[in-house]
Parts: sequence; C-alpha cells; structure tokens
Amino acid sequence: VSNLLFRSLFDAESSTYTYLIADVSTSSAILVDPVLEQVDRDLKLLHELGLTLRYCLETHVHADHITGTARLREATGCLGIVPERAHTACADRFIQDGELLKLGPITIRAMATPGHTDSHMAYLINGDRVLTGDALLIRGCGRTDFQSGDAGTLFDSVTERLFTLPDETLVYPAHDYRGHTGSTIGEEKQWNVRFVGRDRFSFIEFMTHLVLPQPKKIMEAVPANERCGNVAGTA
Amino acid sequence: VSNLLFRSLFDAESSTYTYLIADVSTSSAILVDPVLEQVDRDLKLLHELGLTLRYCLETHVHADHITGTARLREATGCLGIVPERAHTACADRFIQDGELLKLGPITIRAMATPGHTDSHMAYLINGDRVLTGDALLIRGCGRTDFQSGDAGTLFDSVTERLFTLPDETLVYPAHDYRGHTGSTIGEEKQWNVRFVGRDRFSFIEFMTHLVLPQPKKIMEAVPANERCGNVAGTA
Repeated sequence: VSNLLFRSLFDAESSTYTYLIADVSTSSAILVDPVLEQVDRDLKLLHELGLTLRYCLETHVHADHITGTARLREATGCLGIVPERAHTACADRFIQDGELLKLGPITIRAMATPGHTDSHMAYLINGDRVLTGDALLIRGCGRTDFQSGDAGTLFDSVTERLFTLPDETLVYPAHDYRGHTGSTIGEEKQWNVRFVGRDRFSFIEFMTHLVLPQPKKIMEAVPANERCGNVAGTA
Repeated sequence: VSNLLFRSLFDAESSTYTYLIADVSTSSAILVDPVLEQVDRDLKLLHELGLTLRYCLETHVHADHITGTARLREATGCLGIVPERAHTACADRFIQDGELLKLGPITIRAMATPGHTDSHMAYLINGDRVLTGDALLIRGCGRTDFQSGDAGTLFDSVTERLFTLPDETLVYPAHDYRGHTGSTIGEEKQWNVRFVGRDRFSFIEFMTHLVLPQPKKIMEAVPANERCGNVAGTA
C-alpha cells in the first residue's frame, strides 16, 4: 500500500492542472500550482480528506492565471514555495535545482527546467512521476516569447533533463487544452511533435515563428503572481 | 508491474470523461463513453500507443453528447457494446449485470445501476476502480427526470450497489463540472451531499424538486445514440 495520495484538479477557464500530493500516514499535503478561483474547491477537498496543507508549490510565475497561494496561506498557514530566482516578493521559501522536499516518506525533487520562464522547475514525485509545468506539455510545450523565455534553453531542459528520465515516468503537465490528463516520458519522446525530428536550431526557429496571442490575464496575472497571488498588492 | 493502462480523457464542451483501458501485454483496448467530437483525438492516441481498439463500451444512452462509437467502429472494426435493455438499434453486443468483459488479464465487470436511465451500467475494473457513469458523480449524481429515470431506483443503485464496494475503490465518473478527476467510494459515502443524511424518501423528494434545464443536445443526442452515434441515421 502506497502512502501517496495523488490527485489532479482542473481549472477549465485557464486549462490549468493543480496537483494535490498528500502523505496519508501523516495527513500532510502539498498543492502544486493552485488557481485563485479554485481556492474554495481546494480547501473543501483538503477538509474532506482530513489533510493539512503544508506547502503551496509553484512550477513558475504564471502568466495565464493568478496563483491561489496567498489565499491558501491565509486560510491554512501553509508555506509558499517558489523556484529560486523567481521574481516574487513574498515567498516563504525558495527551492533550487536538485533540492528535495519531503512529505513523510514522499519525496519531491526539484528539477530546474528553464526556457518557458527563466526560473521554471519541474517536480519529480517519488521518482516515478513528474510534474512538468509549462516546460513539457502532452504533445506540446510552453511558449518562450515572454517572461525571459528562451527557446534554446527550453530545448535543453526538455531533451537533456526531462527526456533523460526513464521512459515509464508518468508526465503531468500544468496545462492541457485537448482533454489529455497524463502521459509518459517514453510517449513524449516518441510523439511530441515539438521535439521529434527537430534539433536545437530548428526548434528555436519553429518557436520564434509561432504567432500566439497574449494570454488574456497576463497584465494582471504576472504582477499578482510576483506577489504570490495577493491581488491587492499589499502583502 | 501492472498490465493495465488506464487513462482519462476529457471533453470540455460536454464535461464528459472518456476512459481508455488497455492491456499492454496484448495491446488491446477499450474506450468507455467515447465522444463523437473527440474521435480524431482518441484514434490518434490509440495509434501512438500502438493499441488495437476492441470495444466501445457505453455506461448508458447519453443525452448530453453523441457517442463516438459509430465512427470508431467504422475506423477500427471494434465492437459496440451497450447495457442490456438500452434502446439502441445497432449494438454489436449487449452486456448484462454481473457479466465479465476480459481484456487479457484485465477484468471489467458490469454492474446494473439504473436510475439515471433505466439501463445504466457501472463498470468495475480489476476489482479496484469503478467507472460510475452518471449514477454517481463526485459529490453528486446524475439527474433522474428524463429517459425513464427514477430517483428511488438511483438511490438503491448508489447506496446498495456502489456504496457497498470497498471504501478504497477508486471512482471515475462520466462527468465532472468542477475540475475533479477522481474520488473513492469511501469519500463519496462520507461527503456526497446528495446521499449523506438522506433516506430514500427524502432523496426522491430532493431529486423531484430539482429544476434543471434540458441538456442542450438532448433532441439530437438521444436519437443519435440510439443509433450508436450514426448521425445520419442510416445505419
């Protein structure tokens, strides 16, 4: 019997996945990439499962939604953890490449995977599933055209770090827009059209020529997330 | 190592979950409750995973989306399976309460769970996870006001059949409208507000007084699904 409770939660408006990770032996929990509008849902679920929220963990400073961290921290006293070098004024703790976060017997290893933003982390849970944030999406990847994004850096993060995990590693991204809920490293190595058959140069060329609209919420989301989701900006 | 590949796929328009169940040792697969508009996505995924689709299985005749079965059958030669007594003119096979469908070592047991419709089945996968269709949703249940639905019958199906499964049984519904992706029988017994603290009589009273709009697609979906998703109605 595993101690791990692992659950995906979806925000339909921003197509964001929030992940609940809990150790059932100590009833302690982490939320990864919580969404402000879903805080009530997430608090209700934590209550129903009898879990104490210890950390809110971000893969990066998001541009498409406001983090629920500030409200969750207010409600539960949890700590807000963000990647080192993330531009935030309010984190309780920064996490760096290779650092281990422990939740009872559960281990969460931070993997620096910049490129979508310059301070992006993926998180490897118990060595067998990886939360890939916006670095690696299912058959896709995050954009690299703002927030200090860099296509070559993203190519290196995905091909040299994520794609060197074992093929059977489960992949859980921060977003999906087509109804997929999970994948594996082996599947993405074989079928992710952003990377298959592209070298670093042609990947950069491809990403540079993508024409994408600004995320609807970027003007409010980035500054708010730099304040850990404090919308008023007073904290 | 388990032979089971299990994956949830979501259709955002109708908030429907389709489930892919596959035996990796024989590369044979089943889709439960496929959605017409997602057939291309599902065929692509089957191809990428190297799986042969053997069956499309329905939990019931849906009113909110058109099944992908006819198109998937055309494309793959799979068989369309529906619950016994479902009003369909085109099923390749009917499945009855207690019947076992085998996929290599994987067992799928049909559990008659009428009430949302009169021919609804839940499917218990390998004894440890149950696809509950519209009988039991996460903290909710399907409506009972059309398609020969009956609130008392649904109450019996949920409380006497689904809630008597072991508490740790994983619950995967046919729909979710709040971003939940899974639950357990124990959780639903404790927190499903439709059932907690209600006896059969007060459940019937509650369901009878629910005022719900018609599903947007009911006029086209039900007749099309009675033809297994043949939109033209010629099959």
